[in-house]
Amino acid sequence: MRTLERSRERIEHAIAELSGPDYTASPAGITRHAWIPEYERTLGWFEDAFAELGYATWYDPVGTFVASNRGPGEPCLGIGSHCDANRNGGPYDGTLGVVVALEVARLAADEGLDLPLRVLSFLEEEGSGFDSGLLGSRVMLGAISTEELEALTDDTGTGFFDAARAAGHDPERHAESARELDGMLAWMELHIEQARALEDAGLQIGVVDAITGMIHADLEIAGRADHAGGTPMELRSDAVVTAAEIVVELDALARAAPGVVGTVGSITAFPGLINVIPGGAALTLDVRSASGPHEEVFDRIVAFARERGAVRGQEVVVRERTRVARTPMDPHVVAVLEAAADALGAPYATMASGAGHDTMLVARRVPSAMVFVPCRDGISHAPDEHADPADAALAGHVMLDALTRLWDDR
Amino acid sequence: MRTLERSRERIEHAIAELSGPDYTASPAGITRHAWIPEYERTLGWFEDAFAELGYATWYDPVGTFVASNRGPGEPCLGIGSHCDANRNGGPYDGTLGVVVALEVARLAADEGLDLPLRVLSFLEEEGSGFDSGLLGSRVMLGAISTEELEALTDDTGTGFFDAARAAGHDPERHAESARELDGMLAWMELHIEQARALEDAGLQIGVVDAITGMIHADLEIAGRADHAGGTPMELRSDAVVTAAEIVVELDALARAAPGVVGTVGSITAFPGLINVIPGGAALTLDVRSASGPHEEVFDRIVAFARERGAVRGQEVVVRERTRVARTPMDPHVVAVLEAAADALGAPYATMASGAGHDTMLVARRVPSAMVFVPCRDGISHAPDEHADPADAALAGHVMLDALTRLWDDR
Repeated sequence: MRTLERSRERIEHAIAELSGPDYTASPAGITRHAWIPEYERTLGWFEDAFAELGYATWYDPVGTFVASNRGPGEPCLGIGSHCDANRNGGPYDGTLGVVVALEVARLAADEGLDLPLRVLSFLEEEGSGFDSGLLGSRVMLGAISTEELEALTDDTGTGFFDAARAAGHDPERHAESARELDGMLAWMELHIEQARALEDAGLQIGVVDAITGMIHADLEIAGRADHAGGTPMELRSDAVVTAAEIVVELDALARAAPGVVGTVGSITAFPGLINVIPGGAALTLDVRSASGPHEEVFDRIVAFARERGAVRGQEVVVRERTRVARTPMDPHVVAVLEAAADALGAPYATMASGAGHDTMLVARRVPSAMVFVPCRDGISHAPDEHADPADAALAGHVMLDALTRLWDDR
Repeated sequence: MRTLERSRERIEHAIAELSGPDYTASPAGITRHAWIPEYERTLGWFEDAFAELGYATWYDPVGTFVASNRGPGEPCLGIGSHCDANRNGGPYDGTLGVVVALEVARLAADEGLDLPLRVLSFLEEEGSGFDSGLLGSRVMLGAISTEELEALTDDTGTGFFDAARAAGHDPERHAESARELDGMLAWMELHIEQARALEDAGLQIGVVDAITGMIHADLEIAGRADHAGGTPMELRSDAVVTAAEIVVELDALARAAPGVVGTVGSITAFPGLINVIPGGAALTLDVRSASGPHEEVFDRIVAFARERGAVRGQEVVVRERTRVARTPMDPHVVAVLEAAADALGAPYATMASGAGHDTMLVARRVPSAMVFVPCRDGISHAPDEHADPADAALAGHVMLDALTRLWDDR
């Protein structure tokens, strides 16, 4: 067993430091996004920490942070995550992945391993600065156009290109961001689980073998508003009754489809008065699975919504916000992580990620996997988000072991 | 047939005048409540109109308007409604009832009938001034205490007593308001239907034989917020699924109970994000009937809510806002109105009122009934509220005939 307790202490110390007032714009939670001073100071903290290990640090053209003990383009193994936060978010989401990447680099240095590492901290994963998530990884994979980048603005109206230049970057050259993946043989991202499966099972580690496919949609139902007292049941076209039937049906469809989850996170009645039959209703649909038929469930709930709307003479409008295909992780990288977890006796499960991550993008070019650690009560994106540094330390050791195996077996 | 066309013109003219800029504080709809200048001018308009007929006009101690061709306490027949409006309401709700009362008085004068009438325009039926509806009628029936009156404030924080005194009234003497009903042998209120039953049936008149009983309640469900992607269906405690089941069940229970209507007018998810399983939900319940088992339906939906909540480990909190017993109208007054409608060949139906009215209070002391006229699309409390003055004219003639019969048969 390596020095797990020292790793735990270093991780805990780093998270505590980066939760201090210099690193968050809000006393109520962690608020740091491109390019407020607190975000810049956070990156500066990592620059210093990696410099101490003798790593070179630089930025891609839009500001994704890179630290490496090898030059650009040389064969290496990639690790990292993001250190921006959603507004009033928690100390762990994203940042813990970069902190553990630093810990892996520190452990390798401690042990005199000559392991070629490239650490990435992606720009704007949360999208709190320019209302566009997974931004750095989409730039790196060429999954966002110049026009789309030019259209982005922060909450003061400053355009993305101007803001990036003001922060010292060179956003016109964004296509060259792809070079940061040149020579990268494999990629691993550590992240908090953001759910309760590990906690409920009493496990410390999740080896992620797939990131779920997801459909996000908005659904609007147009019925007829009437006085709740004067309108008999048989004369009504109540939009909320249709909406409620959809909620109940989605729950049933998802339960019947193995691996599929379906959620109505928001539901609103219009005009929303106690004594008015709702003439309108709006709801959101979130349907996902890592291996199940979530696209079929989505199609079925949309058909059900139209059918129930038609019974009441209601128009049902469906607007898809996002449709992300599932991303299987690389089976070899997954197997090596499992072998490392077995070798270290780490209590782990192989599982899917229900949330999206920068690794969805990286996996398009580099054999990738993710490592999850539990977070208390499954809470994320909130000030009371918490993860145990001991789990993160164990995960760091598993990752170092896996990276060493991957390098040795290359 | 009396001079229906002249009545139609006078009613149309009065409504048009009282929809003008002198009589509403908002260009977007009718806004007049105690004691803004537009409300005072509206009362002044009625003072002048009744004075032209030789009626005395005065106010009860809190400001309910009275016009009569007999002295206080003398035997008389009561008619009227209210001329305040909800904010940005329509031109007809309430006001049409006072305008038709004026038309009845004008018709009686035209025809030289010596019919003793007392016209009331109740203070603050809509409650837009002091956030307390049916205010004048509750004062008149002693259904609100001095302490409750003292606690009322307008949106500038001015107390009800101070505001009433500033408007020239004598609110300390509110108990004496009861005297305005002394000697009143019967009471009739004309109002727009606020629903679509008359319109859909192609009828001009509704004779109201009961005002529905009503329960208004708020229901809150506390489940558990979790990440919509990472939380399997079987680990969820989704508050919106419970809320949706309640909506569907209330609809079914109300349809199965003759005469009962049940409505969820507002439903909200917390935190209300597309990718978060709702940890909380809030909904409103509106359950009514004029003759059916609405209290039983309410009890059953509350029991169902608790049962479905318990299945998911959720706390369900129910807060009753209002519980109003049903108010049967006086069978004799109803029968006389039906006879008058028959005699005039008016296409009418005898029906219940789904909404509450000042007549619920008056009926506690005086044999009462109401007369409805259709309103377009059932719309009320909105600027596009519309009623046909021809229907109101016919209603006025029916009421005059009924009042004459009641007086002759006293």
